[in-house]
Amino acid sequence: MNNMTRSGIIVALMAASTLALAEVKPSDAVEYRQGIYKAVKWNFGPMGDMVKGKQEFNAAEFSRRAANLAALSKMPLEGFIAGSYSGSTDALPAIEKDWETFAGIMSDFETSAATLAETAASGDMNAIRPAFMSVAKTCKSCHDKFKD
Amino acid sequence: MNNMTRSGIIVALMAASTLALAEVKPSDAVEYRQGIYKAVKWNFGPMGDMVKGKQEFNAAEFSRRAANLAALSKMPLEGFIAGSYSGSTDALPAIEKDWETFAGIMSDFETSAATLAETAASGDMNAIRPAFMSVAKTCKSCHDKFKD
Repeated sequence: MNNMTRSGIIVALMAASTLALAEVKPSDAVEYRQGIYKAVKWNFGPMGDMVKGKQEFNAAEFSRRAANLAALSKMPLEGFIAGSYSGSTDALPAIEKDWETFAGIMSDFETSAATLAETAASGDMNAIRPAFMSVAKTCKSCHDKFKD
Repeated sequence: MNNMTRSGIIVALMAASTLALAEVKPSDAVEYRQGIYKAVKWNFGPMGDMVKGKQEFNAAEFSRRAANLAALSKMPLEGFIAGSYSGSTDALPAIEKDWETFAGIMSDFETSAATLAETAASGDMNAIRPAFMSVAKTCKSCHDKFKD
């Protein structure tokens, strides 16, 4: 994705979020995004175990989880709203200060998760492994910068 | 969906869950499914407000939420595992006792959410309203029977 396209998407997402979430309580937004991340972890964990050989590779099961992850990857961004960076959250206020970087990583998460879901359909672990690692990298880069 | 098809799907889902979640902690399963339901509510609420006219109808926004809901509707079932019906959960043990009814309603939830997502693409509120109400009915029928 080129930078112009990505910038356009980010601006559109911000506008959509502002429009739709005008009256959302910050605590509800925190619970929403934490719920999404629980579901991300729920799917990512078993996929990681299969990639690492800790769990027997089941192509159909992996593919189902990768599809779920791709769907989930589109969801958390709208939960990061004004006033939701204190209290029971590990999300840092840096998210608001550097929204463009944050939203860019979230967009990379979405793109890499979609690629993983496509790759998973092949059932070929040699193709799946690097696609999985690309998703894992977006998780880590975001946590390093924006999670307490 | 005819009964034979539905039974087949339910059996397949049960087998998949048993296979994949052999070592899952009940408390993690509770947090997972509660996370999914938070995300369901997050999307269902604004859609309901648009259906009721409390919020201005925005076809693109509605469609995006309906697609999210359709994806989420596939996810909670695998979180209902043995040992996860006490403690901080409103899910009743009746779920285990009457698994076929429970899984049948969850399947109706999935089917009606998929229909809503398809209908939402039309942008026609006269078609969307009954499709939305069908989903709402599956929520209610499950809560009435299986939620404290």
